[in-house]
Amino acid sequence: MQTGVTVSPPTVQNSTAKTVISVDAMGGDLGVAVVIGGMARAATKNPDMHFIVHGDEPTITPLLAKRKVLNNRVQVRHTDDVVDMHDRPSHVMRNGKGTSMWSSLEAVRQKEASVAVSCGNTGALMALSMIRLRKAQGVKRPAIAILWPSLNPQGFNVMLDVGADIRADAQDLKVFALMGASYARNGLGLERPRIGLLNVGTEDHKGKPELHEANDIIAEDAKTNGFEYVGFVEGGDIPSDKVDVIVTDGFTGNVALKTGEGTASLIGLRMRQAFTRNILARISALFALRNLRYLRHKIDPRQVNGGVFLGLNGTVIKSHGAADATGVEAAIRLAFQLAQLGFTEKLAARVASGLQNRQDDDEASSDMAAEPDK
Amino acid sequence: MQTGVTVSPPTVQNSTAKTVISVDAMGGDLGVAVVIGGMARAATKNPDMHFIVHGDEPTITPLLAKRKVLNNRVQVRHTDDVVDMHDRPSHVMRNGKGTSMWSSLEAVRQKEASVAVSCGNTGALMALSMIRLRKAQGVKRPAIAILWPSLNPQGFNVMLDVGADIRADAQDLKVFALMGASYARNGLGLERPRIGLLNVGTEDHKGKPELHEANDIIAEDAKTNGFEYVGFVEGGDIPSDKVDVIVTDGFTGNVALKTGEGTASLIGLRMRQAFTRNILARISALFALRNLRYLRHKIDPRQVNGGVFLGLNGTVIKSHGAADATGVEAAIRLAFQLAQLGFTEKLAARVASGLQNRQDDDEASSDMAAEPDK
Repeated sequence: MQTGVTVSPPTVQNSTAKTVISVDAMGGDLGVAVVIGGMARAATKNPDMHFIVHGDEPTITPLLAKRKVLNNRVQVRHTDDVVDMHDRPSHVMRNGKGTSMWSSLEAVRQKEASVAVSCGNTGALMALSMIRLRKAQGVKRPAIAILWPSLNPQGFNVMLDVGADIRADAQDLKVFALMGASYARNGLGLERPRIGLLNVGTEDHKGKPELHEANDIIAEDAKTNGFEYVGFVEGGDIPSDKVDVIVTDGFTGNVALKTGEGTASLIGLRMRQAFTRNILARISALFALRNLRYLRHKIDPRQVNGGVFLGLNGTVIKSHGAADATGVEAAIRLAFQLAQLGFTEKLAARVASGLQNRQDDDEASSDMAAEPDK
Repeated sequence: MQTGVTVSPPTVQNSTAKTVISVDAMGGDLGVAVVIGGMARAATKNPDMHFIVHGDEPTITPLLAKRKVLNNRVQVRHTDDVVDMHDRPSHVMRNGKGTSMWSSLEAVRQKEASVAVSCGNTGALMALSMIRLRKAQGVKRPAIAILWPSLNPQGFNVMLDVGADIRADAQDLKVFALMGASYARNGLGLERPRIGLLNVGTEDHKGKPELHEANDIIAEDAKTNGFEYVGFVEGGDIPSDKVDVIVTDGFTGNVALKTGEGTASLIGLRMRQAFTRNILARISALFALRNLRYLRHKIDPRQVNGGVFLGLNGTVIKSHGAADATGVEAAIRLAFQLAQLGFTEKLAARVASGLQNRQDDDEASSDMAAEPDK
């Protein structure tokens, strides 16, 4: 299995082992400059990183010219249209052909790049990804996976689905477990990730019927599939060190994600108030500055910007709409890492093998599962 | 409508306008002493507060003797059994008759007290409450409501259901809206609470079919029911000032609650690490002590301890199993407030009136709705 898609787009010179990322420059709340800024930061640390950038060429080219580090590493594809934050997915599916989002996915579809990054409208991006890249074999529902700050040594846990689809049956949850394990292996470097299924209690009798069924089928061949299954976990375990990957349906996952973000924002605000409410508080804040900076670094959501769409023929990273250059940089570095590891192909192999194991329970069908995906 | 249940239990002298709270002394993680300690603290501030306490008499009586403020204000009801944290609700329903939990609910059933407080097993407490107190008219699914720290002037929002039942159809969600509004009015003093329905987006087309139906039926007579309906809200809005009451099913609500708690714990831990990781950090923490204390006070979960069971013939407050005396005090003060306001009766009237409005849409049926419940 190759460890990265190597292509030679026309404007990139001396291509030998380049990794090309397809970037939708439009659609972010903070404009094109922030996207180009994030690309430049990420590129500084990775000389093999190349880009195809999609959007308004007259806006993009002058911004690129200011960034020496991007010289000869970027191909620009002009598009006239942009997907708006408020466009309905159904509208974009019918009318999205001339948009930068569509074009950025097309580069992945044509194998010119192996990962696409966009700050645009999540619903539209998922809808377009489904019709342009198509679902990988065995995947009925793709999922969006995110990294969640946690007490684990790797600093983050994976949670999926956080909003690709509001539904998931037991079989979908099984596929989420396989995909989540593959992402944790490739994205976080965990050889044998621990998977948990989100529920309202850890006892076997708790929760909805589809969760009981999923509990059984995820457990049954966890070992063959290269992960450890810890059973049901609760909301409080999402940031814990009891589990590496939290599997749930997209409705529950989305609510949990936004609740976590909302709680963190509220505490952040209260902390700022505590350290600025009067002169004395402000003075003591000066003494605590190093501590506060350390804390901010530890819980900075910009460091883990990027929801990854899993289960498509190609990997798509949704960067936060309000991401600044640091956020875009994080999303692009993640894209680069996954592209270099040949993640799309590894994930597809894992899902196929995981479902195969189940169908041919008694047969010696572990040839695919035995193939290491890291 | 009376503003408190006044009873004269045998050992309480000079009863005139007493408010009696039924307290399950057993089942908390930290033991009986913490429960009695919480009672004493709450009683100090409220001379009209009286108790019936249920549990192991030989343990309870010496603890009461140490608290002068509780003199002649407590009746003890001995029980031999305790509901364990790990007992299954179905087991407790069959075998719970001799437990302190059962006895504490019995006092409410017999109208000796109007609110019961217990630190015991949530599932068992809800199951026993359902069979002993029975559901209020028009309520198919009771709900557990909690207070969530928020940016609103009142400092908290109400969320329900956080785990009475994993399911809720559109009609249940409508009843939750009515009950949540009544609780916000009586518990938080909001005359016209703003109700939101938890979803994965605020646009009308987002989310599950039952949410669309609920969205319509909650909106249709919000004004008559004394609340404002703000439509769909997201997880990030739970601690916001956009809404006062968040309505959701018990599965989603429970995950959201525990996710919020888990996120807050993680940030708390990181903050302690930031201020203790080395000598310099510890010294600056000394300078920041006042700020850190202010912050802790602002986000201390013990200040809002107590999930309230709504929709039964009697109000039951579930205090956190791990609550310390401050936590128990908060639960008891909430119980006292609700008892004094005659909350159980007001809530029942609100639900009946809200459902009545719906059935007799064209009739002039606002006589009950017009009755002020605060």
